[in-house]
Amino acid sequence: MTYKLYYWDGLQGRGEFVRLALEEAGADYVDVARGDESEDLGTGAMMALLDSPDEAHPPFAPPFLQDLQEGGLIIPQTANILFYLGPKLGLAPRGEPLRYVANGLQLTIADAVTEAHDTHHPLASNLYYEDQKDAAKTRAHDFIDHRIPKFMRYFERVLAQNPAGDTYLVGDALTYVDLSMFQLIDGLMYAFPRGTRRFSTHYPRLVALHDRIAERPRIAAYLESDRRTRHNEACVFRHYPELDKAGR
Amino acid sequence: MTYKLYYWDGLQGRGEFVRLALEEAGADYVDVARGDESEDLGTGAMMALLDSPDEAHPPFAPPFLQDLQEGGLIIPQTANILFYLGPKLGLAPRGEPLRYVANGLQLTIADAVTEAHDTHHPLASNLYYEDQKDAAKTRAHDFIDHRIPKFMRYFERVLAQNPAGDTYLVGDALTYVDLSMFQLIDGLMYAFPRGTRRFSTHYPRLVALHDRIAERPRIAAYLESDRRTRHNEACVFRHYPELDKAGR
Repeated sequence: MTYKLYYWDGLQGRGEFVRLALEEAGADYVDVARGDESEDLGTGAMMALLDSPDEAHPPFAPPFLQDLQEGGLIIPQTANILFYLGPKLGLAPRGEPLRYVANGLQLTIADAVTEAHDTHHPLASNLYYEDQKDAAKTRAHDFIDHRIPKFMRYFERVLAQNPAGDTYLVGDALTYVDLSMFQLIDGLMYAFPRGTRRFSTHYPRLVALHDRIAERPRIAAYLESDRRTRHNEACVFRHYPELDKAGR
Repeated sequence: MTYKLYYWDGLQGRGEFVRLALEEAGADYVDVARGDESEDLGTGAMMALLDSPDEAHPPFAPPFLQDLQEGGLIIPQTANILFYLGPKLGLAPRGEPLRYVANGLQLTIADAVTEAHDTHHPLASNLYYEDQKDAAKTRAHDFIDHRIPKFMRYFERVLAQNPAGDTYLVGDALTYVDLSMFQLIDGLMYAFPRGTRRFSTHYPRLVALHDRIAERPRIAAYLESDRRTRHNEACVFRHYPELDKAGR
């Protein structure tokens, strides 16, 4: 085993962006929290590391990765994990400068994911959704009306302006950023079917990218497997019909 | 000139995390939006790049950096800019593994900054603060009661568990992460004087770090200079007395 991925069991969440890269590369990894206690895995093993009083570099929250080839080095934060893994998995741009371009895009995807989360929890992650439904509706509708178009127009433009063509977001070959864009679009389409209905008209390059990624043999196999948790309402992308509305 | 920093004029905001690193290193940079139109600077020059229809790697939003030694390469996103600049400015950890530890911490600081912003704009960045004051109060009080302690306890623990001692957050020498931690604490103290009143009791290592950074000769000179915009209510850290409350 090369990598241990630590993320909450039962949801796709931010861990899914890392899983897609590991799966596309056919990497040797274990999804710790989904494992069995008898093998020193499970959520308890993840919490022990999170709460460790003597870990040299404790992570703040899942997801985090442990690289067993690097003395158990712990890498926290989704975009950081992907920046680290990208070259090792053959999913980073070739040149050093383009790796920072990729990281910038990944961090913008991360910002969109945080905003997607906050549509259902605008007041506090500690409060139940039921206790912030009105605020959630205001925020979700603003997200659909203003923020989704701002993010998506930008990403569509990144594809259109890529000097190497509009097949990939960075350079002329697949990177982890393309896989993450698939996941962002997939999550938005699940959470807001009405808000995203006109995506293929407005963002044709992005939707084509999404569809190509879904058809890649390893990704297609993964999406069909039981390693892919279904979208659900424990995730950052939640489908609450009352938060959805027609997009522009 | 080596670097062009692009960020909104009139506020510290996310650009300040980059400025502190450039200032500590004595780097040769220009703050584009604060410059004069007659020298092709100013906010217009920044907007032209943001809206450019043919820039190979357009940024989503300020801050972004342009490295004139790298053919004008554009690096967007605060943490990404610092990851890129760190080694060039002598403000990154020496070993490759610790650079990912630093980046993980920087991204966690960025998460705290986003949450600080959302205390005054929980419903929508597009809406005025005055139109979301009640929601802001709920979110700000949750931030003070739950989120600030969670972040600060974590960062205090990072210092306490650093195998190289509790003087710096990563390794045994100053990195850009320490400068950013100064800025996070400084911003929180400005926005929430009541909520942060007991910081030195609860987080003695962090407050000591904050004070040491403020006394570094170049940082002290910068903080006194007119290049340091004062805290104000256009920033992510805003002091609205009605959002503040006694911290634990």
